[in-house]
Amino acid sequence: MILNKNRLLTPGPTPLPEEVRLALAQDMIHHRKAAFHDILRECEEKLQVLFGTSQPVLPLSCSGSGAMTAAVYSLFTPGEKVLVVNAGKFGERWTKIAASRGLEVLELTVEWGLAVAPEDVEHALDENPDVRGVLVQLSETSTGVLHPVREIGAKMAGRDVLLVVDGVSGVSLCPCPMDEWGIDCLVTGSQKGLMLPPGLALLALSERAWKRCADVTPGCFYFNLPAERKKLEKFETNFTSPVNLLQGLKVSMDMLLADGLDAVFRKQWALTQLTRRAVQAMGLTPFARTNYTWGLTSILLPDGVDGGRIVADCAEKYGAYLAGGQDALKGRIVRLAHMGWLDWSDILAGLYALNRTIIDNGGFCGAHDFLEQGMASYRAALEGEIGVEPPLVHD
Amino acid sequence: MILNKNRLLTPGPTPLPEEVRLALAQDMIHHRKAAFHDILRECEEKLQVLFGTSQPVLPLSCSGSGAMTAAVYSLFTPGEKVLVVNAGKFGERWTKIAASRGLEVLELTVEWGLAVAPEDVEHALDENPDVRGVLVQLSETSTGVLHPVREIGAKMAGRDVLLVVDGVSGVSLCPCPMDEWGIDCLVTGSQKGLMLPPGLALLALSERAWKRCADVTPGCFYFNLPAERKKLEKFETNFTSPVNLLQGLKVSMDMLLADGLDAVFRKQWALTQLTRRAVQAMGLTPFARTNYTWGLTSILLPDGVDGGRIVADCAEKYGAYLAGGQDALKGRIVRLAHMGWLDWSDILAGLYALNRTIIDNGGFCGAHDFLEQGMASYRAALEGEIGVEPPLVHD
Repeated sequence: MILNKNRLLTPGPTPLPEEVRLALAQDMIHHRKAAFHDILRECEEKLQVLFGTSQPVLPLSCSGSGAMTAAVYSLFTPGEKVLVVNAGKFGERWTKIAASRGLEVLELTVEWGLAVAPEDVEHALDENPDVRGVLVQLSETSTGVLHPVREIGAKMAGRDVLLVVDGVSGVSLCPCPMDEWGIDCLVTGSQKGLMLPPGLALLALSERAWKRCADVTPGCFYFNLPAERKKLEKFETNFTSPVNLLQGLKVSMDMLLADGLDAVFRKQWALTQLTRRAVQAMGLTPFARTNYTWGLTSILLPDGVDGGRIVADCAEKYGAYLAGGQDALKGRIVRLAHMGWLDWSDILAGLYALNRTIIDNGGFCGAHDFLEQGMASYRAALEGEIGVEPPLVHD
Repeated sequence: MILNKNRLLTPGPTPLPEEVRLALAQDMIHHRKAAFHDILRECEEKLQVLFGTSQPVLPLSCSGSGAMTAAVYSLFTPGEKVLVVNAGKFGERWTKIAASRGLEVLELTVEWGLAVAPEDVEHALDENPDVRGVLVQLSETSTGVLHPVREIGAKMAGRDVLLVVDGVSGVSLCPCPMDEWGIDCLVTGSQKGLMLPPGLALLALSERAWKRCADVTPGCFYFNLPAERKKLEKFETNFTSPVNLLQGLKVSMDMLLADGLDAVFRKQWALTQLTRRAVQAMGLTPFARTNYTWGLTSILLPDGVDGGRIVADCAEKYGAYLAGGQDALKGRIVRLAHMGWLDWSDILAGLYALNRTIIDNGGFCGAHDFLEQGMASYRAALEGEIGVEPPLVHD
């Protein structure tokens, strides 16, 4: 008999609600017929609320990286200069995509584990008036850091520079109202906070980005945003639509918006506080000391404890699937994601597994009541103000 | 956004594995055709392992109470005398069923929360040589008590008295090998340890019970065990079969027997130790001090804390569905079930919810590390001998 249920605590894909799975299991409908138009119409209304925009939100049949590619290939022409905030693996991805488009890339590198300072973006733009766009993550999934996109948007106000944001592990997990923050392009993927399988990406442009787009010959046949926009007016997509993902999206958007986005963000904030406090009670250090993202927590391991071993043991011995570190962080951190169809109890399972496997691998365990300490923070976060930095208490 | 997943910690129905749900969702097949025969043939082989019998195990389209009725109405004729062990609500049910059949019922009443002493059964049989059957629960679901069926069977050896056992909340959760223990009739239901929805009951008779059965005119048209047996030779049922429950049973039996029954019982034992130790660490008392069943734990609440309120709050505030007490125990106990498709983490969720709601209702909470204490017992139980009474440690 199986001792452990499998619990996916990875930063995408994430667990799916039963309602979504049942929707995904429906028989096919055709993507050029009325029944599909109705689904896409309903999704579109709700996606505009999620993105905080009055502009259309395009559904694309690709992963998040596909949408990042679509943005860069549609908004810039070869030879143009962009500023990339590189603070981790996904910052690097912006660089790679921009380079593949033949753009001149100016990198603002940030130490892994830290967020970019808005002033540094401002300074770089002052020094480089020929920069046409700033490419940044909302949430840098590889380090667990949240970049101050709102503040960056404020620093960029009045400049003819596009703010292009990778919201893959951020949108639906923490606030990112596109129009209000002055974001020109926001992209996300289906397999994180949206509680869907991978395969669907979402992309929206500001009014001025659409104008820029009209002047650019798309760099890739598949990613033709003006053509997608035109089709969306009829509630269709340019190529074949990922039908069942959109059937699922209709259901997951209903769930997400049932009590308003604030309730979604509060839950994410509370799960983040739960995780951070429990980790601290174990005597461990969250890798992102401040500016942490709300969908995952990166955790620095004690010296001599191998992250790969911990991730493997958590899965094998407790059914808890965490993620390891990437590149320079490989073996040094584990990442416990709290996104998708998860609740406090799933997080306790991950925390318990983490604690035990560290002990079993020669590490230390900290306070015996680390779960209760985490839950005390969770309960407090459900009541208090969200998005504020709590004191780093050890008690 | 929904804060809590719903977790069913009730003593039936219990949560279903995805594999079983997918099996249940299959389209219909006909119950008089080859595809169904194949399913029933496979189930039958495995059910004999589960029941520990070389006799056929009959699938009946009814609840557990239906199978209890079928047993009494098939094995005894009006006016015959039976001894009922009444130690709770399901002991009472034996009495009611026997009375409805016109049997003379001799009740051996046992204080709720205690198990019957085998010597008391022996003594009652010595005093009443006209008793034709002993009706008892393996697990008395209303109190969380495990009756010593093996020892009762030993005391009855050599007597022409049928041992009829309600194994509804026991079979597949703790050992009950029918042939070895001298059980003449064993019944169970689908909605407990078998990880299925309600609606399917299973019943097996010993060789001598089949002989008795042949001399009894069935008391109810629907429950005709010899007719069922005859149909089962062709891998059919007498009336229309509950097709999808048997499709599900094939899958759940595969899961249960994958690593042998010992692994199933070990898991149940470990979850029981987890629950009892954590409850004790909270400063509470398991209602069944000894002879506790392996599929649920009954917990005595502090004075002044209303069980109905606790059950309601656990569900509403934490998504944890526990059961209250019944009849005389209403409001005084809660029952946290650890049966069906559950693991240690689901139990932690129920324990945490129980602890917090007791505090919120003016009770006490005990040690802050009650979850860790419970898990220490769980880990130890996965390694050690099972079915032994552990010391009642408070540390």
